Amino acid sequence: MSAALPMHPRLVSLEGGEGAGKSTALAAVRELLAARGHEVVQTREPGGTPLAERIRELLLARSAPGQDVAEPLHPQTELLLMFAARAQHVAEVVRPALERGAFVVSDRFTDSSYAYQGAGRGLDPRWIADLEQRTVGMRPGLTLLLDLDVRQGRARTSGRDLFPDRIESEQDEFFERVRRGFRQRAQAEPERFALIDAAQPPQAVGHDVAAAVAAWLDRQVQA
Amino acid sequence: MSAALPMHPRLVSLEGGEGAGKSTALAAVRELLAARGHEVVQTREPGGTPLAERIRELLLARSAPGQDVAEPLHPQTELLLMFAARAQHVAEVVRPALERGAFVVSDRFTDSSYAYQGAGRGLDPRWIADLEQRTVGMRPGLTLLLDLDVRQGRARTSGRDLFPDRIESEQDEFFERVRRGFRQRAQAEPERFALIDAAQPPQAVGHDVAAAVAAWLDRQVQA
Repeated sequence: MSAALPMHPRLVSLEGGEGAGKSTALAAVRELLAARGHEVVQTREPGGTPLAERIRELLLARSAPGQDVAEPLHPQTELLLMFAARAQHVAEVVRPALERGAFVVSDRFTDSSYAYQGAGRGLDPRWIADLEQRTVGMRPGLTLLLDLDVRQGRARTSGRDLFPDRIESEQDEFFERVRRGFRQRAQAEPERFALIDAAQPPQAVGHDVAAAVAAWLDRQVQA
Repeated sequence: MSAALPMHPRLVSLEGGEGAGKSTALAAVRELLAARGHEVVQTREPGGTPLAERIRELLLARSAPGQDVAEPLHPQTELLLMFAARAQHVAEVVRPALERGAFVVSDRFTDSSYAYQGAGRGLDPRWIADLEQRTVGMRPGLTLLLDLDVRQGRARTSGRDLFPDRIESEQDEFFERVRRGFRQRAQAEPERFALIDAAQPPQAVGHDVAAAVAAWLDRQVQA
C-alpha cells in the first residue's frame, strides 16, 4: 500500500538525528534551489503553522505546564499528535505551496514518524502507513538523510542544549533504534533517499548535500 | 471489525448535543452508582487529563492564540487531536480506574467522534473504527444518548453561551448530521444504548436516566 504513494518532484525533506547538522544542510538546499530561480518554502515538522507549532509544544514539553510531576506522554498519543500537526501542515502549507509551483524544503517529514514513533517507540508501521496515506498522500521526491553515530551526535549537542526537550532526553538505545529505522528506510527506497555522511566536517557535508540536490534536479530535467 | 470490541461492564458514557441536559444526567448517574456503594470516577472528553485538557483547548479555540484571523482546523486534524486526547485519557484515567474496580462515567466518549467527525464532518467511519480499536479497544457497557431536536437544544443554550466555542459555532445542518449519526449508532447497538427523550422536563429526564442505569445494573447481576 505505502509503496504506491507518489513522490512529489518539488518536495524535499531533511532527516537525521540530533547534532547531524540539519540547519547547515537546510541552508545549502535553499540556496541551491534559489540560485536556480525557484521559489522555496522552508518549513519544519512537527510544526509549520501556528496551530501545528502549538501541538509541537505539547509534544516536546518535558512536563505539562503547571505540573511539578510530568504526565507521561503515551506513545500512541505522541503518534497521533505528530499526525495531527502533519495533517494541518500539509493542508495549510505544503500542498498550497506545491500547487503554486514552489519547492518545499521541510526539516523533518513523515520518515521521522516511521523512525521515532515506529522504530523508536515500537508502534505498528502499518498504522503509520495508513495515517500517511490518509493525511499526506505523497512522499518527498528527495529525502536527505544526515546519518551520524549516536554518541558523536550527542557530543556535538551536549554543549548547546542546556534544556533538552522531552525527545532529546531519551537514552542512547532509543536513538540507536531511530538511526537504524532511518537507515532501513533509505535502503528500502534508494531512488528517494540520499544518504549523507554527517560525520564529515560541515563544509564537506554542505558539499555532499548540494551535490545530491543538483544531481536530483538534473535527473528530473532528463526524465 | 468494530462490532467485535468488548463492552466494559463498568464504563458508562453520556452522549448528546448541546442543551440536552448532560450535566444533570451525569449527576443522576453518579448518585445512583454511589448509592449502590460503587467507586465512581467522573470524567470527560475531549480532556480528562492535564495534557488532554490542553488538547481540548486547541480543539475548541475559535482562533489560534495570538492570531486575529483564525487558522482553519482541518477535519483530519480535528479527528487526530480527538484521538490523541482519547488515547491519553484511556491510558491515564479510564483503564486504571476500571482495573481497580471503579465505575467510570464519561461525559462524551468514542461515539462522539463517529457523530461529530464522522457523520458531522464526513470523515471515513472505517478510519474512526481503526483508531478506536487501536487506542480504546472497548466500548461502554451503557451509553445514555440524550436525544433532542437541534433547534430546541440551541434555544436552551443561547442564553447561557455568550462565547460559544469553535464546534458550538457550527450551523444547524452540522448538528442535524451529528444527531442522525448518534441515532444511527443507537439503532445499530440497541443492547448498549439507552435513548433518552431530552425534550422532557429535567425531572423526567433524570428519572429516565436513573431507570436506564438501574435496569442495566440489574441485567448485569442476573447475567
